[in-house]
Amino acid sequence: MRLAEVAERFGATLDCPEQGDRPVLGVAPLETATATDISFLANPKYTALLQTTEAAAVFVRPDFQGEAACPLLRVPHPYLAFAKCIEWFYPQPKPPAKIHPTAILGADVVLGAEVTIGAYTVIGDRVRIGDRTVIDSHCTLYDDVVVGADCRIYSHCVLRERVQLGDRVILQNSVVLGSDGFGYVPLPDGRHYKIPQVGTVVIGNDVEIGAGTTIDRATLGETTVANGTKIDNLTMVAHNCTIGENAILCAQVGLAGSTHIGNHVVLAGQVGAAGHLTIGDRTIVSAKSGISSSVPPDSRMGGIPAMDQTLYLKVSAAVKQLPDLLKRVRKLEAKVGG
Amino acid sequence: MRLAEVAERFGATLDCPEQGDRPVLGVAPLETATATDISFLANPKYTALLQTTEAAAVFVRPDFQGEAACPLLRVPHPYLAFAKCIEWFYPQPKPPAKIHPTAILGADVVLGAEVTIGAYTVIGDRVRIGDRTVIDSHCTLYDDVVVGADCRIYSHCVLRERVQLGDRVILQNSVVLGSDGFGYVPLPDGRHYKIPQVGTVVIGNDVEIGAGTTIDRATLGETTVANGTKIDNLTMVAHNCTIGENAILCAQVGLAGSTHIGNHVVLAGQVGAAGHLTIGDRTIVSAKSGISSSVPPDSRMGGIPAMDQTLYLKVSAAVKQLPDLLKRVRKLEAKVGG
Amino acid sequence: MRLAEVAERFGATLDCPEQGDRPVLGVAPLETATATDISFLANPKYTALLQTTEAAAVFVRPDFQGEAACPLLRVPHPYLAFAKCIEWFYPQPKPPAKIHPTAILGADVVLGAEVTIGAYTVIGDRVRIGDRTVIDSHCTLYDDVVVGADCRIYSHCVLRERVQLGDRVILQNSVVLGSDGFGYVPLPDGRHYKIPQVGTVVIGNDVEIGAGTTIDRATLGETTVANGTKIDNLTMVAHNCTIGENAILCAQVGLAGSTHIGNHVVLAGQVGAAGHLTIGDRTIVSAKSGISSSVPPDSRMGGIPAMDQTLYLKVSAAVKQLPDLLKRVRKLEAKVGG
Repeated sequence: MRLAEVAERFGATLDCPEQGDRPVLGVAPLETATATDISFLANPKYTALLQTTEAAAVFVRPDFQGEAACPLLRVPHPYLAFAKCIEWFYPQPKPPAKIHPTAILGADVVLGAEVTIGAYTVIGDRVRIGDRTVIDSHCTLYDDVVVGADCRIYSHCVLRERVQLGDRVILQNSVVLGSDGFGYVPLPDGRHYKIPQVGTVVIGNDVEIGAGTTIDRATLGETTVANGTKIDNLTMVAHNCTIGENAILCAQVGLAGSTHIGNHVVLAGQVGAAGHLTIGDRTIVSAKSGISSSVPPDSRMGGIPAMDQTLYLKVSAAVKQLPDLLKRVRKLEAKVGG
Repeated sequence: MRLAEVAERFGATLDCPEQGDRPVLGVAPLETATATDISFLANPKYTALLQTTEAAAVFVRPDFQGEAACPLLRVPHPYLAFAKCIEWFYPQPKPPAKIHPTAILGADVVLGAEVTIGAYTVIGDRVRIGDRTVIDSHCTLYDDVVVGADCRIYSHCVLRERVQLGDRVILQNSVVLGSDGFGYVPLPDGRHYKIPQVGTVVIGNDVEIGAGTTIDRATLGETTVANGTKIDNLTMVAHNCTIGENAILCAQVGLAGSTHIGNHVVLAGQVGAAGHLTIGDRTIVSAKSGISSSVPPDSRMGGIPAMDQTLYLKVSAAVKQLPDLLKRVRKLEAKVGG
Repeated sequence: MRLAEVAERFGATLDCPEQGDRPVLGVAPLETATATDISFLANPKYTALLQTTEAAAVFVRPDFQGEAACPLLRVPHPYLAFAKCIEWFYPQPKPPAKIHPTAILGADVVLGAEVTIGAYTVIGDRVRIGDRTVIDSHCTLYDDVVVGADCRIYSHCVLRERVQLGDRVILQNSVVLGSDGFGYVPLPDGRHYKIPQVGTVVIGNDVEIGAGTTIDRATLGETTVANGTKIDNLTMVAHNCTIGENAILCAQVGLAGSTHIGNHVVLAGQVGAAGHLTIGDRTIVSAKSGISSSVPPDSRMGGIPAMDQTLYLKVSAAVKQLPDLLKRVRKLEAKVGG
């Protein structure tokens, strides 16, 4: 590829057109880019790297001002251009559409066009799978599962009875959708009586779910994840939760039962939320926080239990002064006869 | 089904016997119940919902006083009646007892009556499986495993060498029992020498274990979970732990090695416990807490590190005042010449 | 085995040579050892147990002074002798080297000598596997994976495209290496555009990884774990992280993207680290802590957010006095007219 071709493909303005013949072979971050790599600058924090990068060229915003050691490609969204450049330079091979002879299909399975099913995958009765969906090896789809079109289900995923996926859903390896919710009736003698978990899980379009994540089926009704939401690895979504659109749940987040997460919410890594509460749209919760009560839209929360993030930052700073504060108060008491 | 039949089956008193002919088709929570659903009221907090629910009838306690928009079914344990109603209305089909032709059985395997083994499940040598137990697809039972009667093992579970399950044990998908404990001898040069993990895991009767949970085998001896205990998803129980009867471990709990959890203990979500300590019977630990030392029976604990829950609630409230407190002390110091 | 043979094998000085004929049948901790078990004392905290143990003999340091109820075996490293004694008394059978007939091998797979591949394991194209490596049932190795010699990969592990393992690597069950990193470009309309994750994961020699742990592939380049590092169960290592040599990551640790962990670092259970930071060599972070900024070598850290461990211990003690402190300050204010 030549630099001019990159510029043309992304509608970028190349500020040294005379360099348009420069060869481009790959994509890399500013620090590690070599003379044939394209890179990008999205966060102004890294502007200084532009002066030392060895990249062939760098995507920057149209109004970028500053020096650079290499040609600049001005585009409205440099980070997006970078992502699309990765797609272009490193195309991911799609396995050929075929049903592996060791895949086991139940009765009345309905497969769309060009479906791929990997070795040793087991598909239950009455399962429906949409066009062009790829399911890798060692998956189990229980009876009555519905999978949309253009999904990618990596190996070792489990979709329990009646789970539904929309279109373009990506499940990384070893995801479990529809395991039983954790619900018991406490008996007077201390034993726990299992409440049958007869609901299911419904996943919208364009959702991605990380490796090892588990989403429990509803006791009755549905546990839901709406369109466009992305969930990272080893996250736990309990029975009867609902998660809105385009939310981000980072790794190892845990949601207790019947909790409702709004649209565009961001829960950072290892956040936990208690059950039966609502986290309003566009709320951002910082890593490791514990949400113990409902939160209105547009909140910024942090801490265990979570409080307003601004207050939390002040508390986090103040807490380090606490041992010293105890001494100071003791001294004051001595002075005034406390 | 008719309402009178529901009343009869659960020994409930129907307070409007003239409504006994009303049809009942399902079960639902108070908020979402329709005119043919049975619901229940166990927590007085939700009493107001009785006035607006559209349910066909609601299980309540015998002494319930209050208005309701629908007939009441008085029973000693409304929540239990509700759970049993779900069982009744939504019977879970049990797969027919058969050994799938692709299941691989080792030498000297002993199967009870009416055992089911799913596709591509691999059973090692000398494994014993009790009557009516159902094992789904893609499980691996290593050599010398013992599984009791009436167990339900969902797909992708692993039972490593010599692991033992009691009767009526439920393993949700992708549970790992008997992986090696995390034990190493630190060498003078900084390397870690692996200590062979030659013990095993022993699970009692009526235990349920959630999806993706891992329980490590003992270094020597046994890691144990006693009768009736329920463990939620993505929980980690380290080598040589012992967990008592009827305990509840919520999702993403982590126990370090050789820790002992008493009977009827409740560990809420994301709780961690350090190793080599004892948590006394009936102790309740609130979510996200970190137990760093042994705790006597009947404790209520919270915080990191955990303290008495009453104190923890006070500390949690007080900590928000800390930035303000710093200012107040500074002001006091200025006044008295601190 | 006789006690004299144990002494000879480990170069130990047996302080009652007349007991050399005593039979030894097993290995056990001091508390549970019976008259035919070998035990050990490494931590002086447990010295008192030597007076009550029923063990046949106990490994102690050469300079140990103190009373004991049984013969002593003096060796430079009692704990290491104990670990090797477990190896000796409880040899782990290695499965015979064979490729199970149900294993599926792709095109151009290169197998070393005496490789074992279990039932239903699926190996992609161009995979290379070193001598004497054992891969259990139900694993998936995607195309172009490289596995070194003498590795042990337990069942249900996933090695995604191009993942590389060194020699003597142990993967406990259900490990996922090389799942896609969690990277998206936020679009102006609130949707998240997936950044292709085209890098991989490279694991050094003598690494062990616990059950259910997930390590994501790099966006570009490599996520790496260096020689000798041990990672416990259900841990999450995000894309582009690098982990140094001989580090210890305990269970349920979570590392966000592009974080760098030095050599000999110890992260205790449930620790989290934010992305794009560096944790210096030999740093020790206490359980449940949250690392929010880079940490120099040889640090001891604790708390959320993490601070110096000595300060953290003081803060943890002081925080319990906070409700009382509020009262005391109120009292002072009343006195001095605050």
